[in-house]
Amino acid sequence: MDLSKKLEDLSQLIKVAKGEIKGDILLKNINLVNVFSGEIYQTNVLLWKEFVAGIGDEYKEAHQIFDLNGKYLLPGFIDGHIHIESSLLCPSEFTKLVLPHGTTSIIADPHEIANVLGEKGIEYMLKASQDLPLDIYFMIPSCVPATHMETAGGEIGIANIKSLLKEERILGLAEMMNFPGVIFSDFEVLEKIKVTKENKKIVDGHSPGLSETNLQAYISAGIESDHECTIHEEAKEKLRSGMRIMIREGSAAKNLEDLLQIINDSNYHRCFFVSDDKHPEDLLTQGHMDYIVKKAVKLGLKPIRAIQMATLNTAQYFNLNGKGAIAPGYIADLIVVENLSNFAIDKVFKSGQLVVDKGKLIVNIPRYEDPLVLDTININSISPNDFIIKDKGKRVKVIEIIPNQIVTNKLIIEPQVEKEEIVCDIKNDILKLAVIERHKRTGNIGLGLVRGFGIKKGALASSVAHDSHNIVVVGADNYSMALAVREIVKMRGGFVVISDGGVRASLSLPIAGLMSDESAEKVIEKLKKILQSAKDLGSQIENPFITLSFLALPVIPQLKLTDKGLVDVSEFKIISLYEE
Amino acid sequence: MDLSKKLEDLSQLIKVAKGEIKGDILLKNINLVNVFSGEIYQTNVLLWKEFVAGIGDEYKEAHQIFDLNGKYLLPGFIDGHIHIESSLLCPSEFTKLVLPHGTTSIIADPHEIANVLGEKGIEYMLKASQDLPLDIYFMIPSCVPATHMETAGGEIGIANIKSLLKEERILGLAEMMNFPGVIFSDFEVLEKIKVTKENKKIVDGHSPGLSETNLQAYISAGIESDHECTIHEEAKEKLRSGMRIMIREGSAAKNLEDLLQIINDSNYHRCFFVSDDKHPEDLLTQGHMDYIVKKAVKLGLKPIRAIQMATLNTAQYFNLNGKGAIAPGYIADLIVVENLSNFAIDKVFKSGQLVVDKGKLIVNIPRYEDPLVLDTININSISPNDFIIKDKGKRVKVIEIIPNQIVTNKLIIEPQVEKEEIVCDIKNDILKLAVIERHKRTGNIGLGLVRGFGIKKGALASSVAHDSHNIVVVGADNYSMALAVREIVKMRGGFVVISDGGVRASLSLPIAGLMSDESAEKVIEKLKKILQSAKDLGSQIENPFITLSFLALPVIPQLKLTDKGLVDVSEFKIISLYEE
Repeated sequence: MDLSKKLEDLSQLIKVAKGEIKGDILLKNINLVNVFSGEIYQTNVLLWKEFVAGIGDEYKEAHQIFDLNGKYLLPGFIDGHIHIESSLLCPSEFTKLVLPHGTTSIIADPHEIANVLGEKGIEYMLKASQDLPLDIYFMIPSCVPATHMETAGGEIGIANIKSLLKEERILGLAEMMNFPGVIFSDFEVLEKIKVTKENKKIVDGHSPGLSETNLQAYISAGIESDHECTIHEEAKEKLRSGMRIMIREGSAAKNLEDLLQIINDSNYHRCFFVSDDKHPEDLLTQGHMDYIVKKAVKLGLKPIRAIQMATLNTAQYFNLNGKGAIAPGYIADLIVVENLSNFAIDKVFKSGQLVVDKGKLIVNIPRYEDPLVLDTININSISPNDFIIKDKGKRVKVIEIIPNQIVTNKLIIEPQVEKEEIVCDIKNDILKLAVIERHKRTGNIGLGLVRGFGIKKGALASSVAHDSHNIVVVGADNYSMALAVREIVKMRGGFVVISDGGVRASLSLPIAGLMSDESAEKVIEKLKKILQSAKDLGSQIENPFITLSFLALPVIPQLKLTDKGLVDVSEFKIISLYEE
Repeated sequence: MDLSKKLEDLSQLIKVAKGEIKGDILLKNINLVNVFSGEIYQTNVLLWKEFVAGIGDEYKEAHQIFDLNGKYLLPGFIDGHIHIESSLLCPSEFTKLVLPHGTTSIIADPHEIANVLGEKGIEYMLKASQDLPLDIYFMIPSCVPATHMETAGGEIGIANIKSLLKEERILGLAEMMNFPGVIFSDFEVLEKIKVTKENKKIVDGHSPGLSETNLQAYISAGIESDHECTIHEEAKEKLRSGMRIMIREGSAAKNLEDLLQIINDSNYHRCFFVSDDKHPEDLLTQGHMDYIVKKAVKLGLKPIRAIQMATLNTAQYFNLNGKGAIAPGYIADLIVVENLSNFAIDKVFKSGQLVVDKGKLIVNIPRYEDPLVLDTININSISPNDFIIKDKGKRVKVIEIIPNQIVTNKLIIEPQVEKEEIVCDIKNDILKLAVIERHKRTGNIGLGLVRGFGIKKGALASSVAHDSHNIVVVGADNYSMALAVREIVKMRGGFVVISDGGVRASLSLPIAGLMSDESAEKVIEKLKKILQSAKDLGSQIENPFITLSFLALPVIPQLKLTDKGLVDVSEFKIISLYEE
């Protein structure tokens, strides 16, 4: 990963480039996709150790020669913004999944694990990714904890940021979601930005819908990019104002088609592709950056532009010296594809090593194990009584789910009451929802009601619950809910479906309660089973665990639930369940 | 110059951008040249202190309002590679000359002063430029001394480089002229590159004519740019190989017209303009970067591209955060021009301050004085006898000047002899040439003969003599030559014309024997007089002092003279004046 070369190596590399010493690998008769000049032409490329030594027809010898018969050679793809945690996979399993799709570098925002474990979580991610044939760089999560209305497990303060910025693989401050904090000049927020800038590192933005003077103010603070544009007018305004535009196409948000129309010859070098969040089944079936590039070309973008936006432009923004292109002295992260329409990947070279051949991974990916991140579910024992909601003879607020959205409605209803307790009203799809603080054994339990899950019995629980990742559980009865939470504890985190007094399906996520330690295939298989089990209970939602995971996120309107209670997001405060 | 903002300032800036606090200056009804998006459109720009606060029609108020009635607002120009010493001006006088031409930042290579004073010379340049309304960044000269065949005053070794790299305004290692050292893996040369890279700074190249495997080898060492391309095929090969192409248009070398034809929509962002060397009279009469931009547009380049290549592209290559464009939080280095064809400059704002109005400088430029750089002519007293060349009854080698070139021919002639001494042969234009070591009082004097100056009597001398800047003197007789050198000593460096036993004209260059402490106007006036005096002696060369200054440069073929003697450049060694 270290791009500075030892003198002896540098001297050898120069001799290989001059043709005085045999190189390691010659890629012969390739169609070079030159992202510097925008040209595609036939030539040979010589590799030595982890480097490209030289490019040209003059190179004819090497210890190993691949005649590629006119196939295309591209720089390895770079994802400019992704949360690995969304894949539910640990870094090594994530690597196994994306490497065959040509991804050789990613810039990850370890926002989720930082909310659970703070700096320790980021250190785990650094260690877990250090020996992989995928260069994983990190941005420091800028907003941990996300709000004061919830209990997170970790905190990333100025001192943590200062210490983390010293790391080579940490490139800056991740998406500054707290845009109100920026534009209202919260000094702690501004200091995070300042410290990063002083270290000559980058500050990523996150400013959905921000425009005019508010946008100018946000950018004036030194924020350099945005990946939250959803309409092209927004992207155009941000690009004009100096932001790099990360065009996002992931599992959750899909902005490629809307934003592609702003790309032209004058501005493409200020834009690049990111995925943000990719679910494991999408990584497996669609692919990763190759999927975005292919889709962009299908939508009408020139292949060379699409490739520049998945390689060089990203490398330049992040100052990744020796990355994002094919040139002498550059790291030999290379992709061989059959054509520039379906981008079917034949080979991938990572740092000069053939790691994917005929589309299949051919190297062993080392696994990093760390007991320190495996014990993050820290709660008192839970009983059905913990889910009792007393009746006060008042009407109550209910969170109403809007299908396929993370915003919710606020309903006011007459609750169903039995023995002075508010109970679920299955007929009207009113279920109980609880958020159990799981980091510090505070005993905090937030209780509420939710409409829209559609399950007729049992309970669903998850230790993935944005942004603090407490345990969130929805259920038809107190007993099932308690059982679900106990199963989460037993698994040290994960997803579970409970019914009829037993576990119907589960996926354990023991790494910080967020990531599996199993293979992508196993995770996907178990996910399928879980989703089927949730459907069997009557849920009509496509993925009720994703819906569940956003019900505890108190920055998205309207009504949410945290371990501290019900949150009215417009008022940005905890409110009572009961109507006065 | 410090781009990181104090928190209180940052908070104020944000409030100004939001419209909550009045800004300092509003530029109203401007046509904004947006180098990010490639668009030009009418809007308003609000400034606060040294920053751009915001851009948009929403901004209508400020303490001071300029209604610019549709004039064009451009980012300040940046010169990506220049030797200030070539202007013969100290940094403050140089600033006075270029600021009215819209130059607000330059990247200087203090190669000449480093050859005289080593690290101390660079420190002088840093200090002399620290309070100017022109941001002067530096690259560390990579090849001081240039060769072992001459005596330089300074040396820039690894330790100097390590120490200088810590400076904020030092951006990297300057043009690596020692390309043989790179491609033959000279470990000292490679270490200079490595140290720079480890500090995350930039390594500029200098590789005239290098191609194919030698070029690949040179680039593989980590060299990132080139400004020596003279034909478009060369530029194209270097651009394809990953180099940024600095398109040079200066007083000495003019490559714009040849190289412009490679620029297209796919590669323009990898190219930018530099001047390399600008003589004071050219700066005064032609201009600086505005001249290049104007010429490029006249040659057919779109104005927006020409501007991008004089602003944003340069800033991006050098990682000049907050420079090279007009955006919130950026340094307010701005140019107002009447149109995008003649680029007539109306106003220049430097860091938010109006410094040029109606094309005229309106601020006081502080002068930095340092006695430590004023005493660099360090020689024993010189007498006519020092220029005696003994006859050995052999034929001798003569340096033949080729008009308007810095390469020379090697002639072999029968010398004219009087009293066992070789003397000048005015009829055949054979004059004496001497190089007197002037840094360390070694007493070294290199003696030779030169043909092509055309002076019939007297002598010309200069303390500007690439790269070691010893005193070089050409003359028709020993007495005039001694007088010329004595005058150089008296002036503490400079140019002098001697004839008939007296000084005909002179220009003192007391700063390291390279730069004047007078104004540009005075320097130009004196230069004119000197050139006229040289013509009066019979010289037909346009500028014999420039010719003289290159006769001691032992890296340009064929025959040169240093303080150590005659150099055969192809053999890269000192040779005897006498033919065996």
